Amino acid sequence: MYFFEDFAPGDVFELGTVSVTMDQIIEFSETYDPQPFHVDPELALASPFEGLIASGWQTASLFMRRYVDGLLADSACVGSPGVDEIRYHRPVRPGDVLHARVRVLGSSPSFGRSDTGIVKPMCELVDEEGRLVFSMILHSIFERRLTREPVMPMSIDPVHPARSA
Amino acid sequence: MYFFEDFAPGDVFELGTVSVTMDQIIEFSETYDPQPFHVDPELALASPFEGLIASGWQTASLFMRRYVDGLLADSACVGSPGVDEIRYHRPVRPGDVLHARVRVLGSSPSFGRSDTGIVKPMCELVDEEGRLVFSMILHSIFERRLTREPVMPMSIDPVHPARSA
Repeated sequence: MYFFEDFAPGDVFELGTVSVTMDQIIEFSETYDPQPFHVDPELALASPFEGLIASGWQTASLFMRRYVDGLLADSACVGSPGVDEIRYHRPVRPGDVLHARVRVLGSSPSFGRSDTGIVKPMCELVDEEGRLVFSMILHSIFERRLTREPVMPMSIDPVHPARSA
Repeated sequence: MYFFEDFAPGDVFELGTVSVTMDQIIEFSETYDPQPFHVDPELALASPFEGLIASGWQTASLFMRRYVDGLLADSACVGSPGVDEIRYHRPVRPGDVLHARVRVLGSSPSFGRSDTGIVKPMCELVDEEGRLVFSMILHSIFERRLTREPVMPMSIDPVHPARSA
């Protein structure tokens, strides 16, 4: 089971592949993001995307499911304070097969409490040609093992300042 | 209809209210974010959140629906390159009534093309007591009117550098 202390800068976790159908794209977008290029295949053809594409929020959510199944489900994760630098590098189309991966950028103890810490992984979806499709930096809170092992230094700016830097 | 030139720093758009039921939280989370505190009311009670809360991705998506209905549907928006600084200030619980609002931070012409520009609104969900629940900075691409009016200066760092700064 993964605790805060189990993540070091540079650690990589391969999280398997994910895909999405046209029906799933339309169903999600009709509820949450009904822009023409997400819900109407005809109008999407005439859009700059030249075809139906997934909502960016569905793309992030598809990644999240891989992150939960491939890592968080076997961890002491207790939520998240936020996300930075979501980037949509390429559109996601029906049937695209995307590989999910995270690489730990850094971590720091939580500010003002001793039992948790924040880990920041760079999260990516890559297509079958190896092209980057989606990326973001998650902030995930994990419980600590509460040993007295030294914590790892932050390699990127923390949301909450580390108590000792 | 809103084009790139129709957004100025400081402009505020009130986008109405949104709410989410327990069933909607569980349905979304079973598909995209099956952490215990999003899918299981019993386990959620024992979690640090002391009850079921919405996935942050559903919270962002609920905001997005208000943004589409209240602004993008009547605009020349042609997508987004990304999102910055998503922050979950307070948990979203079943039945919470959240008010959606955007405030334009800045805008800049697209890099390398004359027919579009990027607008960056600070997006917020606020609860009935006026407390900030959720915030993020969207990057939205809008078509330009293609007049020769001067464009507005960026007030925040652009994703793509402006052609003239």
